[in-house]
Amino acid sequence: MVEHVALGIDIGGTNTAFGLVSQDGHVVFEDTLSTSYYADPQDLVKHIYNAVSQSEHFPNVLGIGIGAPNGNAFTGNIEFAPNLIWKGIIPIASMFQDQFHRPALLTNDANAAALGEHLFGCAKDLKDFVTITLGTGLGSGVFIDGDLVVGHQGLAGEYGHVRVVPNGRLCGCGRHGCLETYVSSTGVVRSIRELDRASRWQSGLMKLQNPTALDVFNARDAGDLFAQEIIEFTAETLGSALADFAAFSNPKAYVLFGGIAQSGDAFAQKVKYYLEKNALKIYQDEIEIRVSHLHDKNAAVLGTAASLFWKAVKK
Amino acid sequence: MVEHVALGIDIGGTNTAFGLVSQDGHVVFEDTLSTSYYADPQDLVKHIYNAVSQSEHFPNVLGIGIGAPNGNAFTGNIEFAPNLIWKGIIPIASMFQDQFHRPALLTNDANAAALGEHLFGCAKDLKDFVTITLGTGLGSGVFIDGDLVVGHQGLAGEYGHVRVVPNGRLCGCGRHGCLETYVSSTGVVRSIRELDRASRWQSGLMKLQNPTALDVFNARDAGDLFAQEIIEFTAETLGSALADFAAFSNPKAYVLFGGIAQSGDAFAQKVKYYLEKNALKIYQDEIEIRVSHLHDKNAAVLGTAASLFWKAVKK
Repeated sequence: MVEHVALGIDIGGTNTAFGLVSQDGHVVFEDTLSTSYYADPQDLVKHIYNAVSQSEHFPNVLGIGIGAPNGNAFTGNIEFAPNLIWKGIIPIASMFQDQFHRPALLTNDANAAALGEHLFGCAKDLKDFVTITLGTGLGSGVFIDGDLVVGHQGLAGEYGHVRVVPNGRLCGCGRHGCLETYVSSTGVVRSIRELDRASRWQSGLMKLQNPTALDVFNARDAGDLFAQEIIEFTAETLGSALADFAAFSNPKAYVLFGGIAQSGDAFAQKVKYYLEKNALKIYQDEIEIRVSHLHDKNAAVLGTAASLFWKAVKK
Repeated sequence: MVEHVALGIDIGGTNTAFGLVSQDGHVVFEDTLSTSYYADPQDLVKHIYNAVSQSEHFPNVLGIGIGAPNGNAFTGNIEFAPNLIWKGIIPIASMFQDQFHRPALLTNDANAAALGEHLFGCAKDLKDFVTITLGTGLGSGVFIDGDLVVGHQGLAGEYGHVRVVPNGRLCGCGRHGCLETYVSSTGVVRSIRELDRASRWQSGLMKLQNPTALDVFNARDAGDLFAQEIIEFTAETLGSALADFAAFSNPKAYVLFGGIAQSGDAFAQKVKYYLEKNALKIYQDEIEIRVSHLHDKNAAVLGTAASLFWKAVKK
């Protein structure tokens, strides 16, 4: 019996992962590429086509699920993504459809992650939860009563662009103080230069030419006080924001996904601490912080995108 | 033919309205009382029973729909309402049920208002909208894809308790900077004492012993500059917050409901102006501000509560 597969594509600000995924979430082929290398998105589509067409499973591809920042499920377009080099409106779903001659569905990357958690991950048991993806930016996918919230334009769940600091850091969206300017890998790196702490002057982080978020977590592990304070500040900013965001959908849990979240239980525990400290009384002790385990399996990131297509097939 | 009616009760921080409402939203009996007069909620229940039982329509009451601040649809309890004199947990639905021997359903007052708008009001044509009620506090009722969002604990839609000013005004919930401490009738009154504007020293508002929000709107109409600035500040705070809140459910419209919203189109227009000024690019020119017209009919406030019961009957 031929096992059908879906092509899952997770387009991120830095990397794009893609792979072939069976209906039970098994990844039979996978690869990655550097998103920003492709100034023309058509070249990225062709690269993925060339790579996938060499797989023995290629003839069994039924369709394509794409997760991308600012991906609009209604139009199939990536629309004004601050964290991608492609500006304006990119008709990514029809570009893949034309190249593969297979149906292609798009959603934003965080919605794809939420679908993945609900189908394969740590939100299988939940009807009301919010996935927070911590990558180049901060994305979110909101489940209410067992369904993904898409909204009037297909653009619901942009928690990264709620402003949490009046006149705060300039965001790629053109506004100031958006949550993702503090809580994301780029936000953590900005904190090295912008967070005012006495400890910074003794920190080895200040000597690095192009430090990354990973450098901050490594410095923390090596006992760097400023690195600890950056991570504390990042966790507090997120926990405090999630406390307020509970007032929207009253979720049972937040699922943290992505590099920063996977940096160890300590980060999630700090987020939980600041969530409780800032929560409205009616929400206290009611909201869990879960850490995605799909990311550790790496390939399962693909499942999150492929799940978009499989979910459509199931309906 | 006997026309069946539902008893609708809208419990507010200041006043409680109640009445008998037919399935098409026709109010056949109505009355109001002062909520804070009743230190024991059981006395309020008895007062409403005595009033309603004198109506000729009393034998035709099928059931009861109650809207109240912090009303929990799952438990039937009012839970820790900062804007009511009743503290802790009040089993209001079972109190009405025991008194009337009729089924009683509870939701928070803003959810009841959203249901009312969807059934009888200006949101009949909308699947994705948020009702913002501006009374003693600020409440919200969220519709997504044609359904009211209730959340994991039945406590979704508390937009008034999103903190919009770090270390801002002390809120009844014990935290600081909640939206309702600025945007509500009590918030407008606090602005008289707390908003730092040069114009305040010339304002007649400063001479009033116990000014109300209505005094501020009347002073604005009389040309008082400080009153104008208070209303501008209130509209800006609300418009800016609603711009951010669009990132949650991506609504087609916000429906403003309550005294401040009904103070004239000027307020809604200002809110719309600041919404557009602060919105993420993808939401610009996509979100309407509508003003409820149920409130003008006064009695229709009751419909918002009764609609809760009628909606349950329809299902």
